[in-house]
Amino acid sequence: MVIVMKAGAEQQSIDAVIAQIRELNYTPHPIQGTERTVIAAIGDERGKHELQQLESMRGVNKVVPILEPYKLSSSEIRPGERTKIQIGDVEIGGETLILMAGPCSVESREQILESAEIVKESGAQILRGGAFKPRTSPYSFQGLGEEGLQYLAEARDKTGLLIITELMDSHDLRLVEQYTDIIQIGARNMQNYGLLSRLSETKKPVMLKRGMMSEINELLLSAEYILSEGNYNVILCERGIRTFETATRNTFDLNAIPVIKKMSHLPIIADPSHGTGHWEYVNPMAKAAVAAGADGLMIEVHPDPENALSDGAQSLRPDKFRQLVKELKPFIQASGRTF
Amino acid sequence: MVIVMKAGAEQQSIDAVIAQIRELNYTPHPIQGTERTVIAAIGDERGKHELQQLESMRGVNKVVPILEPYKLSSSEIRPGERTKIQIGDVEIGGETLILMAGPCSVESREQILESAEIVKESGAQILRGGAFKPRTSPYSFQGLGEEGLQYLAEARDKTGLLIITELMDSHDLRLVEQYTDIIQIGARNMQNYGLLSRLSETKKPVMLKRGMMSEINELLLSAEYILSEGNYNVILCERGIRTFETATRNTFDLNAIPVIKKMSHLPIIADPSHGTGHWEYVNPMAKAAVAAGADGLMIEVHPDPENALSDGAQSLRPDKFRQLVKELKPFIQASGRTF
Amino acid sequence: MVIVMKAGAEQQSIDAVIAQIRELNYTPHPIQGTERTVIAAIGDERGKHELQQLESMRGVNKVVPILEPYKLSSSEIRPGERTKIQIGDVEIGGETLILMAGPCSVESREQILESAEIVKESGAQILRGGAFKPRTSPYSFQGLGEEGLQYLAEARDKTGLLIITELMDSHDLRLVEQYTDIIQIGARNMQNYGLLSRLSETKKPVMLKRGMMSEINELLLSAEYILSEGNYNVILCERGIRTFETATRNTFDLNAIPVIKKMSHLPIIADPSHGTGHWEYVNPMAKAAVAAGADGLMIEVHPDPENALSDGAQSLRPDKFRQLVKELKPFIQASGRTF
Amino acid sequence: MVIVMKAGAEQQSIDAVIAQIRELNYTPHPIQGTERTVIAAIGDERGKHELQQLESMRGVNKVVPILEPYKLSSSEIRPGERTKIQIGDVEIGGETLILMAGPCSVESREQILESAEIVKESGAQILRGGAFKPRTSPYSFQGLGEEGLQYLAEARDKTGLLIITELMDSHDLRLVEQYTDIIQIGARNMQNYGLLSRLSETKKPVMLKRGMMSEINELLLSAEYILSEGNYNVILCERGIRTFETATRNTFDLNAIPVIKKMSHLPIIADPSHGTGHWEYVNPMAKAAVAAGADGLMIEVHPDPENALSDGAQSLRPDKFRQLVKELKPFIQASGRTF
Repeated sequence: MVIVMKAGAEQQSIDAVIAQIRELNYTPHPIQGTERTVIAAIGDERGKHELQQLESMRGVNKVVPILEPYKLSSSEIRPGERTKIQIGDVEIGGETLILMAGPCSVESREQILESAEIVKESGAQILRGGAFKPRTSPYSFQGLGEEGLQYLAEARDKTGLLIITELMDSHDLRLVEQYTDIIQIGARNMQNYGLLSRLSETKKPVMLKRGMMSEINELLLSAEYILSEGNYNVILCERGIRTFETATRNTFDLNAIPVIKKMSHLPIIADPSHGTGHWEYVNPMAKAAVAAGADGLMIEVHPDPENALSDGAQSLRPDKFRQLVKELKPFIQASGRTF
Repeated sequence: MVIVMKAGAEQQSIDAVIAQIRELNYTPHPIQGTERTVIAAIGDERGKHELQQLESMRGVNKVVPILEPYKLSSSEIRPGERTKIQIGDVEIGGETLILMAGPCSVESREQILESAEIVKESGAQILRGGAFKPRTSPYSFQGLGEEGLQYLAEARDKTGLLIITELMDSHDLRLVEQYTDIIQIGARNMQNYGLLSRLSETKKPVMLKRGMMSEINELLLSAEYILSEGNYNVILCERGIRTFETATRNTFDLNAIPVIKKMSHLPIIADPSHGTGHWEYVNPMAKAAVAAGADGLMIEVHPDPENALSDGAQSLRPDKFRQLVKELKPFIQASGRTF
Repeated sequence: MVIVMKAGAEQQSIDAVIAQIRELNYTPHPIQGTERTVIAAIGDERGKHELQQLESMRGVNKVVPILEPYKLSSSEIRPGERTKIQIGDVEIGGETLILMAGPCSVESREQILESAEIVKESGAQILRGGAFKPRTSPYSFQGLGEEGLQYLAEARDKTGLLIITELMDSHDLRLVEQYTDIIQIGARNMQNYGLLSRLSETKKPVMLKRGMMSEINELLLSAEYILSEGNYNVILCERGIRTFETATRNTFDLNAIPVIKKMSHLPIIADPSHGTGHWEYVNPMAKAAVAAGADGLMIEVHPDPENALSDGAQSLRPDKFRQLVKELKPFIQASGRTF
Repeated sequence: MVIVMKAGAEQQSIDAVIAQIRELNYTPHPIQGTERTVIAAIGDERGKHELQQLESMRGVNKVVPILEPYKLSSSEIRPGERTKIQIGDVEIGGETLILMAGPCSVESREQILESAEIVKESGAQILRGGAFKPRTSPYSFQGLGEEGLQYLAEARDKTGLLIITELMDSHDLRLVEQYTDIIQIGARNMQNYGLLSRLSETKKPVMLKRGMMSEINELLLSAEYILSEGNYNVILCERGIRTFETATRNTFDLNAIPVIKKMSHLPIIADPSHGTGHWEYVNPMAKAAVAAGADGLMIEVHPDPENALSDGAQSLRPDKFRQLVKELKPFIQASGRTF
């Protein structure tokens, strides 16, 4: 942290800041510049937020953070190593590209079983499907709840696919955990800290989706909530951010893939279906995600998108999905991965 | 909803869309343009999301929403009338400007009692203070929990102020409700739909803060969750959105005040402390919020900001707070309100 | 500037960075932290951009700027003083609130003369009107050119109002300068550096509008282009930025008013017509701008908005404009200004 | 265009809107909904902006555009065909991936000749280098001007590469045109309409970079300025937009590639150097751009980035550039292109 004093700050103000830095257990290191004094505060970065308060002291111009505020999510904690998460035969974050696919919502037993067949046949390892749905409008379909979880489990039994489904409320942790292989935390809950800290109570891996207005830094800090309470099996997911551009529903931020590969050791999945919001853009952006280095993809596929109860506009029909998987293969190979 | 067909879409595709609109219980209304066909779908707007799926049909270029997706939050439901919420002697949304003030977090009994005296003396009606804190970092101060609620209640008893405090997790609803006069839902939980739908279980008024990534439309849809389950005492709060500008911590979006006044009948409070994130900007932006027509202000004041456990950089010292209230008065009067 | 080394950077890399800082004529100041080394580079901030290149050196994690990159626009150059620009009887940046009003475009002699009467009668000091129009579409009305400038001059002669009009192309500098009292540089040209540097050739004051995706820092840097070549009469103007919110055409960023008052000595005008893009929001946001401390307002008024050739949706009718000016007066007074 | 009336709008207001639509030479088509009336206005979309003014009429809630505002840039003008631009042996927009590479600025004869050798050897077809530089700060290096153009021409003569360089000011059109093979219009000038409309005076192809604040729609409208005046050789370029995320200098918006492929027939180049602003992210994002379907790449390479006069932090060293080109090849092949 660097505290920048105002030009012409009095020595008395500088001394007060130095004293306050010491009181907060940092080592002050004043530097006399040509225009003004800046004071570096040396110490463990985890207390940073407290230092920010120095902005309210007399003579302080601003407080500039230097180090990243997360620690356990950081690649510095284990240089050169990457987290790999093993679930049965499937390794997430390893050499094999992971493909998670399925409908947005579980709508019926038939729909999810039919979807599971399509997903299985493509070579994907994981079936997705929401039983609890975060919907912007209270008048939209809210999901089948436990019934949906049961259909998912049945689909797993029939196909051998792993399953991933969203947990929205900590009340449902025990219930969801009992059915799913991976717990998904949705973008709108990325900063639901009550929910995040309860995830230490499960041994199930967690896939944390980036909030649509969250910096990558904040995604890693939210991962830190889960890691710091003892659940180390965290997978990150990029699914689009909100910008001024409206040609796509969100702006799928593929830059997050190499940034996270640099900043963190955690695996990173890309979701071009939510990322773009239009089925026509899923194919090229899925390829781009693989080329950018993603450890896996999450793709929405629905047997009958125009009658889907949610997100039909961004779901692939079965034939388009098969074509995508076929076209993806040379890109997977070019990126040095297997599938 | 208007469905725009691609230029050159075949009649067969147009017919299929028309049939599908009928199946979804809307009345199709095709219009032959100079360049292409557009089809208006007439019916109650609450089913809109389902119509969006038509984007996956052959020959469809895009689906354009026409009406707002909320209903109970809309000013159209009671033209010319505004919701007023009475709590004891205090009316929110009426002629008197509401002032909510206090520290970001309840840090100790002394701190909150001292803050309450300052707030009371200024003429404010409501004391704010967080007992449960949503913190970006797991290493930051997380709040005193029930102990904090007890200190707030004691401050109320001593001063006669109403109190407002944040509810973060639906587990704590009974606990928080028992102490507070107004339940605050924080920006990060604006789309925590599990939490929102539980608010029908309380009779206490709810102040819903706009998420930093949320459109005003979405704020009104989140309010709709609470209203549609039977709790009509909803207050909205603008507290800054996230943009590319970094000179302020957030971009305090005062435009939201007149927009909400036009779109909705619900009262709207402005929070320039979170909105700007710097104490130096709180004074001018509080005045601006009053001039823009806000029904009230939420202001952070702390007896000792540089030792605050959270948000010290945006908290006013007691003397600056007193000066603000004094300087506000002519603006309150100019806006035709009392205080 | 602070250069943050990677954790575990080798001494050799640190030494190379130190040597490079010296070569660039800064004084290196290495600080050994608990986790890694950071190196402060002390020297005049105007060369900053060159230091940024150090990011490409081995072992460097990132380069963090500390000081602001502008100098002549900065309030530090003349602490406590503000620039006042005198044009005839009118002082911009002084005690009297400045009101600039008129149509978006000069459309005809009748239209601008009629507008000028309305503007004059309200007590405003300055008439606005565009003769050259930057239009997103090549098929939109592009302005009357010199004919428009002549009508503006005639309106000035008839009313005694000053006039302000936009310069879009440096080719037209001599032409525009000859008619106008203030040269306006539009938001889309805020970073047209060719145009900016030509403004040293005129003695006429320049009003520089903030680009819709420009940080306040960049606005001050663009002002620096004009100031550094010897034209000191620069007025800034906030007219809305682009964000994800679509309820208003732009997000009128009133925070820029107090931020600029703190960072710079230059006068700042607020334009709620472009800022919000809807005539219904102009009235409350004009009041809010005055309360936030703006030195003046720019307001679009048109005798017949529904037949306007540009920006009709955000223009006030004459009666609404008169009502606004009347309602503004108590807010101007509350802010300690005259009108 | 659809005009949405307010709920409860009087028949008289509806009639007035209908009359006004007719006066503007559109055909009104009123639709009586369950909640309110909407009126479709049928006609050529190029006059759209005028219809927007109807928002100022009594009883109008909002005006919603339906069709895209550009015409010559649109893929609808020549369905299934794509523009290919032939310059000597090089075809842009065809089967062969285009690689443009070189330093940000031409800094000296040696630097550009050395760069040209590196670029030539890699198999790239086009050398980039700026002689006129748009710099945020007036104190930064502004380019060598004509001297730089001469060095570029010499590099072309020595290597047989084509050259591309930026035109900033219409004053320099004749000068730049005389040396360059492709004229680049930079992001900050994407809406400098004076400059755009002068490009009809040249036969040289133009590469138009997307502004960092510009929607894809607006990029296509700016292309329309050039096309509509008779220069059909327009190449588009995605180079990053401004968002709240700061981990990358810009948010390189790869979604623009498939969106533009759908909306327009013009070739699209991707610039991951400016797009990300950090050399470490150029390699993965260049691969991703190829996978997303870009017709070519623009890459910054510099013989000595840490002494570069501009953009060193995002420039590749020669060895990293060679490695990139080598690693790109399987992705180019996977995308069905040659190189």
